[in-house]
Amino acid sequence: KTHIDCISSSRIVRLPGLIDPHVHLRDPGATHKEDFATGTAAALAGGVTMMLVMPNTNPSIVDAETLTMAKGIARQKAYCDYALNVGASAGNAKLIAPLAKQVGALKMYLNETFTTLRLDNMTDWMTHFEHWPLTSPICVHAEGRSTAAAILLASLYDRPLHICHVARKDEIEIIKAAKLKGLAITCEVCPHHLFLTEEHAKAMGNAGQVRPNLVTKEDQNALWENLEFIDCFATDHAPHTLEEKNSEQSPPGFPGLETILPLMLTAVNLGRMTLNDLKQKMHDNAKRIFNLPTQSDTYIEVNMDEAWTIPEETTFSKAKWTPFAGMPVIGRLKRVVLRGKLAFVDGQVLIDPGFGEDVRTWKQKLT
Amino acid sequence: KTHIDCISSSRIVRLPGLIDPHVHLRDPGATHKEDFATGTAAALAGGVTMMLVMPNTNPSIVDAETLTMAKGIARQKAYCDYALNVGASAGNAKLIAPLAKQVGALKMYLNETFTTLRLDNMTDWMTHFEHWPLTSPICVHAEGRSTAAAILLASLYDRPLHICHVARKDEIEIIKAAKLKGLAITCEVCPHHLFLTEEHAKAMGNAGQVRPNLVTKEDQNALWENLEFIDCFATDHAPHTLEEKNSEQSPPGFPGLETILPLMLTAVNLGRMTLNDLKQKMHDNAKRIFNLPTQSDTYIEVNMDEAWTIPEETTFSKAKWTPFAGMPVIGRLKRVVLRGKLAFVDGQVLIDPGFGEDVRTWKQKLT
Ligand SMILES: [Zn+2]
Ligand SMILES: [Zn+2]
Ligand SMILES: [Zn+2]
Ligand SMILES: [Zn+2]
Ligand SMILES: [Zn+2]
Ligand SMILES: [Zn+2]
Ligand SMILES: [Zn+2]
Ligand SMILES: [Zn+2]
Repeated sequence: KTHIDCISSSRIVRLPGLIDPHVHLRDPGATHKEDFATGTAAALAGGVTMMLVMPNTNPSIVDAETLTMAKGIARQKAYCDYALNVGASAGNAKLIAPLAKQVGALKMYLNETFTTLRLDNMTDWMTHFEHWPLTSPICVHAEGRSTAAAILLASLYDRPLHICHVARKDEIEIIKAAKLKGLAITCEVCPHHLFLTEEHAKAMGNAGQVRPNLVTKEDQNALWENLEFIDCFATDHAPHTLEEKNSEQSPPGFPGLETILPLMLTAVNLGRMTLNDLKQKMHDNAKRIFNLPTQSDTYIEVNMDEAWTIPEETTFSKAKWTPFAGMPVIGRLKRVVLRGKLAFVDGQVLIDPGFGEDVRTWKQKLT
Repeated sequence: KTHIDCISSSRIVRLPGLIDPHVHLRDPGATHKEDFATGTAAALAGGVTMMLVMPNTNPSIVDAETLTMAKGIARQKAYCDYALNVGASAGNAKLIAPLAKQVGALKMYLNETFTTLRLDNMTDWMTHFEHWPLTSPICVHAEGRSTAAAILLASLYDRPLHICHVARKDEIEIIKAAKLKGLAITCEVCPHHLFLTEEHAKAMGNAGQVRPNLVTKEDQNALWENLEFIDCFATDHAPHTLEEKNSEQSPPGFPGLETILPLMLTAVNLGRMTLNDLKQKMHDNAKRIFNLPTQSDTYIEVNMDEAWTIPEETTFSKAKWTPFAGMPVIGRLKRVVLRGKLAFVDGQVLIDPGFGEDVRTWKQKLT
C-alpha cells in the first residue's frame, strides 16, 4: 500500500475514502456559517468522502417533511457522499421510526449545546430507545453522567448506541467498562479533544467555546490511553464565523473537516497509533456501525512525510478559521478519488456540486 | 392482627417495629438541629424502632476513626436501634471497604445537597462500586440522569444498589425498566414527595428547600402509580431549625420521623395501598435489603381510625416544625414495644437514652 515517491522519497499511502460520522453543515438556516457545498468541499479537502450530517439546522430535521427538504438541498450541492441524520424531539419518536432506512442514524441531544432539540426528560429518551429500529444506531450527545445514563438505556432496550464526541476520563472509563461487559455501544472522539486542552480554550477566549468543553490534560491522556475502545474519529465539524465566535455569546463549536486528517497522520507519525488504527477509526468502524454502503473505486492518497503548519484560515469551510492554526503537522492529503472520479488533488476540488450522493438512496439492504 | 377496641370501636393494629433506612441526626457537628437522643426519640414517636443513620455529619463519617467516634455518641444517646452508614469520598474506597460489616451501608452523594461528600467524577463512583463488598448495598443520592448512571454501574459491577428518595417520573420509570430487566436495584420514596408538590414548596418560600426538590403533580402521580416498584418508604429526616429554614440560604431538608406513619396509615385508609404494602415498605423490605437482624419481641400498635391533624410543631425533633403541619390524617401510633420493653405509649417515651443498640454489634452473620 505504501509507495515511495521517486523524486522526494516521501511515502505515499493509499487509504479508503474517510467517513466522518459527525458533521454540522448549517444548511438550511445558517448558510452564512456553512452550506452543503462548502462543507462537503471542506470534507474532500480532509480526505472525507462520506459523512453523516447532523439535524440541528433551522428548521431542525425532525420529520418526513423537513427530511425531504434537506435532502433536496443536499442533492443539489453536495461534493461528497452523505447520509442525513434525523433529530429526536420530545414528541416525534413514533413519527420518525419509519424514516430509519432513509437516514444515517437518529441523533439525540441530552445536554445543552447548539440546538433546540435537547431532551431533558429521560422518559422521552426511553420512548426513542423503544421505537427507533434496532438496525439503525442512536447517536447521543451525552456528557458525563448522561453518557452512563444513555448506556443504561441501550442495555435495558438491547439496542445499539453510538456515543458522540467522548471527551473526559470518566466517560471513556465507563465506555470501556461497558464494552468489556459486552454491551453493544460504540463511540467517537474528536481531534480537538485529542489535540487541544482547557489551556488552549483559555488562550482562545470566547472562541474556545465548544461542547463538550476542551478538557484537562488528564482527560486527554485518558483518551489516548484508551484508543482501543474508541471506534471512530469524528470532526464534529461545527462551523461558525470568527466574528460570531469572538462575540460575548460565542456559539459552541469548531470547524474540523480540513484538519482532521493531517492531525491524525501526525499521531501515526509520532507512533501514537498505527496507520491501520487510523484506517479503522476513520473508515472501517463507521462503515460497520452505521451500516454504510461501499463506495466503489474510492480512495485517498496521502504523503506521510510532508511537514507543514496548519494555516490561520480554512480554505473551503465558510468558518474561515481553525482552532488548530499554527500547529505543526506531518502528513498531507494529495488526492481523493470518489467513485472513479478524481475529485480533489493538491488543494483543488475537481468535481461539481451535486456529484455527492445520498448513500441511503443506493440499492442496498439495511441488514 | 386487627383488634376492635371495646370502648371506641376503633381498629387497633399491630405491626412490626418500623425500619427507616434514611435518617440524618446531625450528631456530631450540628446538635442544635438534632442529636442522637432527640432524633431517635422522634423515631419512636413515628413507630420507627430501627434506622440507618446518614454519614454527612461534621465531621463526616468516612473512616474507622470517625465511625468509632460516631458509634460512641450513638451508644450513649440512642433510644431506638440503629446502624450507622459510612460515606464515600474521592479517596476512601479501599479504606472503608473493611468497615462494611460494622455499618448499615455505604452512602454516596452524586448530586449537590447538604453535604461535603459529593462525588462529581464517575471514576470515583467506579472505585467505590469496585471495592465495596457485595454483601452490603451502596445507597446513592442520585437524581435524574444520575439515577440511570448509578444503575448502569450497578449493572456493570453486578452489585446491589439502593436508590434513595426517588422523586420524579423519569427516575421511577428507569427504575421500573431496570427492575423488569432483572437488575438488583432497590429504591425508597419519601412522604414529602408522595404528599407535597412544588406548589407546597412555593407556598413555603425558603423553607420549601429540599433535595430532591418537591415535584410536580405528574411526578407525584408516577410515584403512586408505581408503588409496586418502590421497596421502602424512608423519611430522609433532615432536621434544620425553622430559623435556618426561613433564611436566605435555607439548607435543604425536612424533618419526617414523627409524621411518616400517620401519613402512610392515611394512604392505607384512603385505599391507595394495603396495610401489607405498608408493612413491606416500612419493615420487611428494608430488613432484607440491608440485611438487618430481627428485633425480637418488637412491635408497634396503631389506631387505624383516629382522625387528627398534624400539628405545627414536632414534639421530639429539635426541628420543631414540619412541612405537613395542618394536614388531616387518619391513623395514629399508640404504643411501641422495643425488645420486650414498652418504649413509647400515647406520646410518651418510656425508656432511657442508651437503650437503643447498634444492630451491627449483634451476633449475626452477614450473609
Ligand atoms: Zn513515484
Ligand atoms: Zn454534540
Ligand atoms: Zn455535533
Ligand atoms: Zn469505504
Ligand atoms: Zn379491647
Ligand atoms: Zn439525599
Ligand atoms: Zn438524606
Ligand atoms: Zn423487624
